[in-house]
Amino acid sequence: MLPNYTVNIMAWLRSPIKGVMLDISGVLKNGNVAIPGSIEAVQRLRKCGLKLRFVTNETQLSRHDLTEKLRRIGFQLHENEVFPPAPAMVETLKGLRLNPMLLVHPKVLIDFKDVDQSNPNCVVVGDAAEHFTYERMNSAFRLLMELKNPKLFTLGRGRYYLEEDGLCLDVGCFTTALEFATGLKAEVVGKPSSSFFATPLKDMGLDSSEVVMIGDDIESDVGGAQKCGMRGVLVRTGKFRPERDENHPNVKPDAVVNDLAQGVELILSSESFKSLIKHE
Amino acid sequence: MLPNYTVNIMAWLRSPIKGVMLDISGVLKNGNVAIPGSIEAVQRLRKCGLKLRFVTNETQLSRHDLTEKLRRIGFQLHENEVFPPAPAMVETLKGLRLNPMLLVHPKVLIDFKDVDQSNPNCVVVGDAAEHFTYERMNSAFRLLMELKNPKLFTLGRGRYYLEEDGLCLDVGCFTTALEFATGLKAEVVGKPSSSFFATPLKDMGLDSSEVVMIGDDIESDVGGAQKCGMRGVLVRTGKFRPERDENHPNVKPDAVVNDLAQGVELILSSESFKSLIKHE
Repeated sequence: MLPNYTVNIMAWLRSPIKGVMLDISGVLKNGNVAIPGSIEAVQRLRKCGLKLRFVTNETQLSRHDLTEKLRRIGFQLHENEVFPPAPAMVETLKGLRLNPMLLVHPKVLIDFKDVDQSNPNCVVVGDAAEHFTYERMNSAFRLLMELKNPKLFTLGRGRYYLEEDGLCLDVGCFTTALEFATGLKAEVVGKPSSSFFATPLKDMGLDSSEVVMIGDDIESDVGGAQKCGMRGVLVRTGKFRPERDENHPNVKPDAVVNDLAQGVELILSSESFKSLIKHE
Repeated sequence: MLPNYTVNIMAWLRSPIKGVMLDISGVLKNGNVAIPGSIEAVQRLRKCGLKLRFVTNETQLSRHDLTEKLRRIGFQLHENEVFPPAPAMVETLKGLRLNPMLLVHPKVLIDFKDVDQSNPNCVVVGDAAEHFTYERMNSAFRLLMELKNPKLFTLGRGRYYLEEDGLCLDVGCFTTALEFATGLKAEVVGKPSSSFFATPLKDMGLDSSEVVMIGDDIESDVGGAQKCGMRGVLVRTGKFRPERDENHPNVKPDAVVNDLAQGVELILSSESFKSLIKHE
């Protein structure tokens, strides 16, 4: 028995689940610590032949370092299953022939090593954390005010995330500050952008109706996935806060579960719902 | 002759002008340098017997230090003519019996010396400039998320201002970041709040219809003053940018002038408009 979970049965029966997208921070781990049961939950999904992708707005580490970090904690995964915003941003910049000023964490710079940063004509904001200084924010602001055709990109629009010592301001806050100052609207490369989810979907070779996204951010993870046609499951781990998330005004998750382990149990037992309804 | 100014004649003729409120940064001075003609313009207003108040959202200096700084540059004024947000904030905090966490510039702390800052139950954001660190922003954020009845105050909602080395992000940007993160709406103590303008108005003993506000911020100065029933004059100095301010979607200044000197000329000649119209 699964206590305390809520599920939109009709959504679960819509089509069989062939793939799962997992958010990382707050779902697999908090800070450097695996959330109890999450390592085994990922293994269960693999054993059942479901395709997995790890879809994150993490921009404090490069794709490589993020994968290695998860491996050290005990997760089994390959780098090419991990989809952070930085590589997607690089593709966008190359496609538009733009040179960015990077307001990002130093550890993610390596993902931008092939991008020309001279004479910048746009700004890219990532989760720079303690590297969000007034000076750097102001440099980005001044560039945007000087450019004839300013472009502001952000690697996500998250409000906050949970670290071991507490909640932390996320990239969305600083993006919003620059939007307020400049009057510009930032383009999001990362969740909840549909074009960002499209890349791992294509990589899985699945239709969005066959995929479930599991995350702790009701807007970026659940709302974003649902906009793409995926089912969105909210976990009560990570940054989840019942008073804010359990009855969100705009986003209704297809299921709310206590943690990833329960979410996986739900996915693996979803076929049985069908027989349950048939019996009635 | 005054070249290049635009004026809403009917607004100017509405009632005689008995007092003038002046913004400081961008009107009297840029950084530490007096704007040409502004020292003499203030003297002209005084000579003509108009009541003057200096109404500013400056929160990088205490009221005393701000007055002294203006005197050193060459302006003649008294400390009790200067109305910055910090003393008003102190009154508000005392009235509501609130203990603030102060996210403000160290130089303005002296204005808060009589306020109990132990066990804070609200956050006050000022123009902390380079003291807006991620760590301090995050501490304020965490406090607001922990409080049962969180209150967020901001000493202004400006987007940016002009310093000698260029445009600088103002307090509104960082307030907006905290609002985005917490879902709260900050209460403004400072321009454009009507209750903030009410204090210098009362101090002058004048009705708002008898007072003109001159500023370089079309929203905080001009829009805020107009909401109180004052006439609002926009100067083309300081942060003024023609492409953004000359045809603002929401705020129509009662006059747009090149600088304070021209604004004062306009005020002092406004009586002559009347005779001009009568002659026609």
